[in-house]
Amino acid sequence: MFIFSEKDIRQVTDVNEKALELIEDGFKKLAREEVTMPPILRVDIPENNGEVDVKTAYVKGMDKFALKISSGFFNNPDKGLPSLSGMMLLFSTETGFTEAVLQDNGYLTDVRTAVAGALAAKYLAKPKMKTAGIIGTGTQARYQLRALHLVRSFEEVLVYGRKEERVHQYIKDMEDTLGVKVRAAESPEEVVRHSDTVVTTTPAKEPLIQKEWLHPGLHITAMGSDAEDKNEIHPSVLEEVDVLACDSVSQVFRLGEHHHAAEAGVLKESSNTLELGHLALGNEKGRENDEQVTFCDLTGTGVQDTAIAVYAYDKLREAEKGIRFPE
Amino acid sequence: MFIFSEKDIRQVTDVNEKALELIEDGFKKLAREEVTMPPILRVDIPENNGEVDVKTAYVKGMDKFALKISSGFFNNPDKGLPSLSGMMLLFSTETGFTEAVLQDNGYLTDVRTAVAGALAAKYLAKPKMKTAGIIGTGTQARYQLRALHLVRSFEEVLVYGRKEERVHQYIKDMEDTLGVKVRAAESPEEVVRHSDTVVTTTPAKEPLIQKEWLHPGLHITAMGSDAEDKNEIHPSVLEEVDVLACDSVSQVFRLGEHHHAAEAGVLKESSNTLELGHLALGNEKGRENDEQVTFCDLTGTGVQDTAIAVYAYDKLREAEKGIRFPE
Repeated sequence: MFIFSEKDIRQVTDVNEKALELIEDGFKKLAREEVTMPPILRVDIPENNGEVDVKTAYVKGMDKFALKISSGFFNNPDKGLPSLSGMMLLFSTETGFTEAVLQDNGYLTDVRTAVAGALAAKYLAKPKMKTAGIIGTGTQARYQLRALHLVRSFEEVLVYGRKEERVHQYIKDMEDTLGVKVRAAESPEEVVRHSDTVVTTTPAKEPLIQKEWLHPGLHITAMGSDAEDKNEIHPSVLEEVDVLACDSVSQVFRLGEHHHAAEAGVLKESSNTLELGHLALGNEKGRENDEQVTFCDLTGTGVQDTAIAVYAYDKLREAEKGIRFPE
Repeated sequence: MFIFSEKDIRQVTDVNEKALELIEDGFKKLAREEVTMPPILRVDIPENNGEVDVKTAYVKGMDKFALKISSGFFNNPDKGLPSLSGMMLLFSTETGFTEAVLQDNGYLTDVRTAVAGALAAKYLAKPKMKTAGIIGTGTQARYQLRALHLVRSFEEVLVYGRKEERVHQYIKDMEDTLGVKVRAAESPEEVVRHSDTVVTTTPAKEPLIQKEWLHPGLHITAMGSDAEDKNEIHPSVLEEVDVLACDSVSQVFRLGEHHHAAEAGVLKESSNTLELGHLALGNEKGRENDEQVTFCDLTGTGVQDTAIAVYAYDKLREAEKGIRFPE
C-alpha cells in the first residue's frame, strides 16, 4: 500500500486537458451503464456542525476503484482550522486489496469538480463568449474559472461575493492566473444579466438566481448544491430554460437544484434532463444555437473520484512519490 | 495522521475482557439510541467475485469514530491470496480530520465479531455448560471459541467442518490454546444434538441447522450470515426457539437469519427479537432457566467497529507504535 501526501498529489495533478479527457471518459462510461455507483453514505455529527460523506464508483474494466471520504465541519474556522478535509482510497478491483491512501484533503475533489464544470460548458455554453460570470470567491470559484478557460475563451470576468476583501483577492489572483480582466459586480443579478456563462459556487440555502435575469444565449452551471438543504437557483429557472443537463439524474433529484424544482412542483423526475455522459457520447444534443438558455446541475459523482484518483496514482508512481506501508 | 500495521495492531489488541467490556458498552449506547449508524455501503465487483462493504457508526460523546472498509474477493485463494482484506479509518468527531489508518486486514473485525458472540453467550447460554459446539473451522471458528471461553467454562468442544485436514488442524490449535478436549463431529446434527451452546461460523447459503435437532437448554449463535444471500439456520428454527436475540434488529431483518425467516413467513419484523444492548442494559431478560432454547443472530455493526478501533488506537499510541504521516 502506498501513501501520498497532499503536497505530492498537488505536484502531479491539476485542472488540465488530461483531467478533462479522463473525467469525460468517466461520464461516458456512466452513461453506458458501465459504472456501479452506490448511494452516498453519510454520517452527521450535529453536535459539531459536521458531516462526513463517502462516495465510490466501480468502473468496469478499470483495475482500481476509489472510495472517497469527505468531511465538512463548519465550526472548524472558529478554531482556525479548515472546514473541509478528506482522503481518497484506491482498491484493486482484482483482489480488493488497498493500493493507496491519497491524503489529499479535498484537492482531487476540487479538480474533478472543476473539470465537470468545464465539460458542462463544453457542451452547453455558447462557442463564442465575451463574459464569464462567477458567483462566490472561494476555492471552486477559482478552479471553475480556470476549468472554463480550458474550453472557452472570454474577454472578461464578472465576480460577485459578499465580502469585499475576498472579492478583491479573487480579482487579483485570477487576473494573475488567467491574464483576463476581472471586475466586481454589485449583485448576482448584475453577474447573470451581463455574462454569457455563469458558474455558481456557493453553499447557499436560499436561491441566489431568479428567472427574470435570464437572457438569450446564457448558460448557467450550478455546482454549489450537493446536499438536500443547499439551493442556489430558484426553481422557476429550471422550468424556464431551454436545455436542462446534469451529472447524474438520480443524484440531482436527491441533492441538487432539481430536487428543489421537483419539490416546488415545476419539474418531474421524468423530465428531459440530459446527462453529461450522453452529451459527451453524442447521444443527446446540448446547445443547438446562440439563443438557447441552458442549465447544468452538478452534485459530484463517484465516477469522477475514481477517474481522478487513478490518474493521480499513476502519475505519483511514475514520479516515485509516496511511501510504501508497511515498509 | 497515524498509520498502523496489522503486526502492531495484533500486538496490542485481542479477544479479552477489556474488548468485551468496550463492545458491550457500544451495544448499550446503540440500545439507548446514542449511536448514528447509517446503512452499509456496498460495491459488488461480480467480474472478480468480489464485494466491498463500508460500515460506520458515530457514538455520541466519543471523540473519534471509525469507518471500516472490508473486502471479500473469493477468487483470491486461486491466486494464493487471502479472500478477506480491509482497514479501519479513525476520524475526529470534533474536526472531521483523519486521525488514523489502521491497516489491520480484518483483524479488528475478527476480534469485535468474536466478542459479540461472547456477549450473546453471556446473556443467553446456560450458566453451567458441558459441551461447546462449533460449525466451521476457519478464523472465526477459532476466535468465537476463545470468546465463548471468556464467559463460560466447558469441558469439551465438538467441531464440524467439511474438510478433514482443516478439522484436525482446528482440533490441534484449539486444544493447545484452551487446554480443553476438542472432538470432531460427523455432522452439524451431531454438534447441535450434543452441545449446550453452538456457534455457526460459515459462509453457507443453504441452512445447516434444522429445528428437529433442538433440545432443552440449547443456545445457538449464528454469526456467518452478514449478507442477503447467506443462510446458516433453517427459518423454522427461529420460529421454534423460546428467546430470539440479535445485534441490530434493522440489520438482521436485512442481512441475517431473520431475513430468511421473514421471507419464509415464519417471522414478522415486529417479532419480539431482543437486541444485545437491551439485554446488557437489563431492559430485557435473556435466558431465564435451563430449559429454554435461545438463539442470537449476528450480522456485525458499525458500533463494534468504532469501539474496537478507538480502543486499538489508544493502545497503539500508548505503545508509541505506528508512523506519523506526513512526517
